[in-house]
Amino acid sequence: MAEALSLHSKQVLAANQKDIQKSTEKGSAFIDRLSLQQGRLQNCIEDMRAIASLPDPVGEVIEEKTYNELHFCKKRVPIGVLGVIYEARPNVTIDIATLAFKTGNSVILRGSSETLETNQAIVNAFQEALCDFPCAIQLITTPDRAAVTQLLKMDAYIDMIIPRGGYALHQFCKEHSTIPVITGGIGICHLFVEASAKFIPSVEVIVNAKTQRPSVCNALDTLLVEESIAKTFLPAAVKALQEKGVTFVLDEKAWNLLDTEREKNPNHFRKAQEADWKTEWLSLTLGIKIVESIEYAIQHIQKYSSKHSDGILSEDKKQIERFVSAIDTACLYINASTRFTDGGQFGFGAEVAISTQKLHARGPMGLKELTSYKWIVQGNYTVRGS
Amino acid sequence: MAEALSLHSKQVLAANQKDIQKSTEKGSAFIDRLSLQQGRLQNCIEDMRAIASLPDPVGEVIEEKTYNELHFCKKRVPIGVLGVIYEARPNVTIDIATLAFKTGNSVILRGSSETLETNQAIVNAFQEALCDFPCAIQLITTPDRAAVTQLLKMDAYIDMIIPRGGYALHQFCKEHSTIPVITGGIGICHLFVEASAKFIPSVEVIVNAKTQRPSVCNALDTLLVEESIAKTFLPAAVKALQEKGVTFVLDEKAWNLLDTEREKNPNHFRKAQEADWKTEWLSLTLGIKIVESIEYAIQHIQKYSSKHSDGILSEDKKQIERFVSAIDTACLYINASTRFTDGGQFGFGAEVAISTQKLHARGPMGLKELTSYKWIVQGNYTVRGS
Repeated sequence: MAEALSLHSKQVLAANQKDIQKSTEKGSAFIDRLSLQQGRLQNCIEDMRAIASLPDPVGEVIEEKTYNELHFCKKRVPIGVLGVIYEARPNVTIDIATLAFKTGNSVILRGSSETLETNQAIVNAFQEALCDFPCAIQLITTPDRAAVTQLLKMDAYIDMIIPRGGYALHQFCKEHSTIPVITGGIGICHLFVEASAKFIPSVEVIVNAKTQRPSVCNALDTLLVEESIAKTFLPAAVKALQEKGVTFVLDEKAWNLLDTEREKNPNHFRKAQEADWKTEWLSLTLGIKIVESIEYAIQHIQKYSSKHSDGILSEDKKQIERFVSAIDTACLYINASTRFTDGGQFGFGAEVAISTQKLHARGPMGLKELTSYKWIVQGNYTVRGS
Repeated sequence: MAEALSLHSKQVLAANQKDIQKSTEKGSAFIDRLSLQQGRLQNCIEDMRAIASLPDPVGEVIEEKTYNELHFCKKRVPIGVLGVIYEARPNVTIDIATLAFKTGNSVILRGSSETLETNQAIVNAFQEALCDFPCAIQLITTPDRAAVTQLLKMDAYIDMIIPRGGYALHQFCKEHSTIPVITGGIGICHLFVEASAKFIPSVEVIVNAKTQRPSVCNALDTLLVEESIAKTFLPAAVKALQEKGVTFVLDEKAWNLLDTEREKNPNHFRKAQEADWKTEWLSLTLGIKIVESIEYAIQHIQKYSSKHSDGILSEDKKQIERFVSAIDTACLYINASTRFTDGGQFGFGAEVAISTQKLHARGPMGLKELTSYKWIVQGNYTVRGS
């Protein structure tokens, strides 16, 4: 499949260019997600080869025991048929088709109409490689949204629905699907700078989390700073972020503290409304709030986090422990950027989704997360006693 | 909690007797599921003590690695709040409340109106034991079905819905819930007697699977017999089953083969219709079909199994292997009774449900299956490279 995609890369990139040209008015975050240009297709192909070389999880014995005069063997099996509904990110087509095929699953893909040219070129290449099994990877090409509603009701044929997109798509799937849905992908991500944190490295982590790729779900949305260090820490952090083009949404205390910075660039700052804390920015905007103590940071995160990626910057083991046990989030970071929430960065080769629900899988979903298991129970004509 | 239930066992049994008296017209299978009499409550309490002594899965490190200059720790956490909707089986109240509390989950129970007296007596005992945490185990007492529909939409508060009951209940939950639902509990279970199987022990397994507790989901529904041995095997099996009061629904070939048996007891036999193979009997009825070869047995099971519990009786390793790889069912038995599909019998202490879906958990769900995990990722102010 990687070979076929490589052979057809010109066609795929040309198709992608067509899709991009049709969507120029949609803004840079949209185009960034849509684009396979500038080496991204090549990266995807390299990721595919990495996935191909990973051990096959199917057939793995997860657990084995003798109990009750029976031999129990819990064996990993494919899930079956996956339905994937996603927006304008053609790398999703590549990642998911590869992971699904590697794990013995069939996949029915439903990308957005804006990526139809790219997706068709990719799936054509894959189906060519699959020879006798082209139906293992299928693409729904009808732009009609009714096709999605119909797909979501086909529980007799499809075992799992993976929506990848915004809140509205996840909500739609949750409400209409009779098939189990993996929800996630919405990251309202927090970093809390605790009083003991090292200043300069903390600023680097924050800049990385916010600006390294602001259009994706694991980018930082809200920075919480402990009040006792805010006066020295915050101006330095804001300066570094401004150099990367970040603008700020501030709580009352941060607004007052940053008056010098505001005077210089008044249009880089505005006061936060309640709704801002519930916003996944997907852009170079950052919410900042000053909190009296770790307890208030925890309360804020418990209230507003989408349970995707949250972290603490601190040198104090006790405070770190307190934070880690109180915050129930898929990926919890200690002195690291939230940008690491990604299948590749977790060593999974790639990912089908980032789950923020608690069933089946949580966080990045790679190969194992695309499998189920069956129990094989061997006896010697064994019967159950009364 | 076990102690409190033991102390209040008289009240619980008296309440259960009241519930039973109100439901006498509902038939023996119904009363069997409803009853905690004849030592069953005591068995439940013993199961609770066994669960209490099991290791606590919460906090367990499932996986740990250093990758990407980061330390990854995948740690088991409670799921959160469970919603459980079930029919007239008060042992479910005990099992689920115990397993949920043991794993740090809260549970909202919604039993059927026929068990309200029993459930209230049980939950009262538990809440007394929970002292400051009575809300960790809650019982919905309003008989109004609208309460269920409302519960199923509370995805902001409830993390998982477990329906325990018939097809209609599962379908209702699948269609109306915006919360992830664990479906299962419906067992259309098969045993296939392959030509090499030992006759007398096979009959014992079949009798056990069908008659040891016919009202539950892991009881045998359809017996498939390889044609080459049917003439000698089937009359012996039918004789043993008849002694336990079983009646038969036969395919054409079995109908013709069992003509002598039919003549003696014409009312114990009838011809099978297509719908019979899709029926979970929950009673002393057994479907029998003669198949030409293992391939036809596999085809029948693939078509009609609810993927709960299916098995093969055979001495031929190759045929066993073929069967095991072809049949995708939660619990696959080799020379053992389907009646073992049960949390207790699997060594889980008890069970919250038997899942027949492929997400999250499959087969009996015990303690581990009531947990999720979070990733704790520790760095040294680590940032993601481009």
